[in-house]
Amino acid sequence: MSLPLSMTDTVAGLRDEVQSWREAGYTVGFVPTMGALHAGHISLVRTALQRADRVVASVFVNPAQFAPGEDFETYPRTLEEDAAKLAEAGCHLLYAPTVREMYPTGFASAVHVDGPAFGLESQTRPHFFGGVATVVTKLLNQVRPDTAVFGEKDYQQLLVIRRLVTDLDLGVEIVAGETLREGDGLAMSSRNAYLSAEERGRAGQLNLILKDLAQEAASGKPLETSLLHARTRAEEVFDAVDYIEIRNAHTLQAIETETLEEPARVLAAVRVGKTRLIDNMAV
Amino acid sequence: MSLPLSMTDTVAGLRDEVQSWREAGYTVGFVPTMGALHAGHISLVRTALQRADRVVASVFVNPAQFAPGEDFETYPRTLEEDAAKLAEAGCHLLYAPTVREMYPTGFASAVHVDGPAFGLESQTRPHFFGGVATVVTKLLNQVRPDTAVFGEKDYQQLLVIRRLVTDLDLGVEIVAGETLREGDGLAMSSRNAYLSAEERGRAGQLNLILKDLAQEAASGKPLETSLLHARTRAEEVFDAVDYIEIRNAHTLQAIETETLEEPARVLAAVRVGKTRLIDNMAV
Repeated sequence: MSLPLSMTDTVAGLRDEVQSWREAGYTVGFVPTMGALHAGHISLVRTALQRADRVVASVFVNPAQFAPGEDFETYPRTLEEDAAKLAEAGCHLLYAPTVREMYPTGFASAVHVDGPAFGLESQTRPHFFGGVATVVTKLLNQVRPDTAVFGEKDYQQLLVIRRLVTDLDLGVEIVAGETLREGDGLAMSSRNAYLSAEERGRAGQLNLILKDLAQEAASGKPLETSLLHARTRAEEVFDAVDYIEIRNAHTLQAIETETLEEPARVLAAVRVGKTRLIDNMAV
Repeated sequence: MSLPLSMTDTVAGLRDEVQSWREAGYTVGFVPTMGALHAGHISLVRTALQRADRVVASVFVNPAQFAPGEDFETYPRTLEEDAAKLAEAGCHLLYAPTVREMYPTGFASAVHVDGPAFGLESQTRPHFFGGVATVVTKLLNQVRPDTAVFGEKDYQQLLVIRRLVTDLDLGVEIVAGETLREGDGLAMSSRNAYLSAEERGRAGQLNLILKDLAQEAASGKPLETSLLHARTRAEEVFDAVDYIEIRNAHTLQAIETETLEEPARVLAAVRVGKTRLIDNMAV
């Protein structure tokens, strides 16, 4: 039987609850989210529950990782439904701080990560990973979990966070949560809610294009040919293609060989109407 | 009776020792240093010992806070003497990591602080506080102490670290350790070892100039007049004056009033021969 879900919107409330768990000898898992929870998030919570005695999920739409003109204002906020889903999943604590709690007057610090943050998402969203690194450093220091789960859907973010945790000695095990997909293979994302029916129809093509690209690359075809093919297909379906790439799976560095000789990942970002979709998969 | 001093040069060794203290219910204090320990450092260790059951001191000359051409290579390294002094003071653990342990291959993260880091030291050493903020974030996450002691001698650094600890939720109490002075009032500093006898004679003037400036400002004299007087005196004695300023004691922001109406601090950096000296005091 699971305990009822507690809720807090303050660092002090969070620390009190985690402290009481620590005193009882429990291990602590953590799942940071921006809310608008779907089955993919709940799967991350289940992964955390398998690895820790008590699990905190955070819901915080972090202004620091949105640029002006991006969807910070319109990002879906569904805290009541989120709480119900977390309670049902057996999560123990929902931490939903305000912007003022996270960034009080006088806030003046930032965490910057290079390495895996270079290129891809950073090309289109140059301030994104700085905002992510700063808020994740704060959240991990606030919760001090044994384990934190991040979805592979945001694969570059996952590698940036692994780098950050190693570099700043944050002392937490980072676990990758697999990407959940809809029936047509579209990766689950809170931003899928933005899609019109027509756009939703096209969106499902992204994972198919990536799947074919990964198969071609794995089969030993020249990477340039496979990439050209995938990009051409994507440009026919989508309103813009930010990138489609094959990169080293661990460093995200460009692959210099003609055909594939190292562990690799295919990654893409495209626009469908006003919605930006990202996806990735192992080769 | 004090325990013998343990020593480790690895994060793992440090964490093992701190973990065993935690399991025994001890509180933990921390004093980060760059070594070349003098009575001022030992006073910080004593402050930590008053507040915590067990105390770690670190000795690490952090390359990230030195610019090319500064004294990273020549900075005094006296680990054996440092260990003897720490043992005598009753410190429990000396943590002296290598550069490779702190910044392994692939290291790609940095912490940046604005606010109190703006101006003063940053004018002459623009990368200094970035290097300090990054290494202090690492050290505090490695040790996870209850209390950490930083000397008021580096007053701007103390405020930067308070800002950092608040902003990144590092969950440690920062305690200010008072500045120890030689007979003529010269603030103790590892860099005083660089001074020739002639330079050492002049160096003692810095604290006298600051003391007079603080008294004039406190007495209600116009700040511009007092500052001009102090700067003129300093330029006569020293080979260069990087800055002499009166700033808000909490924010280090410039003071806009003609005479003093807020808590303030006088701060200075000067050059004597090739040696850069800094000092500060309350008004």
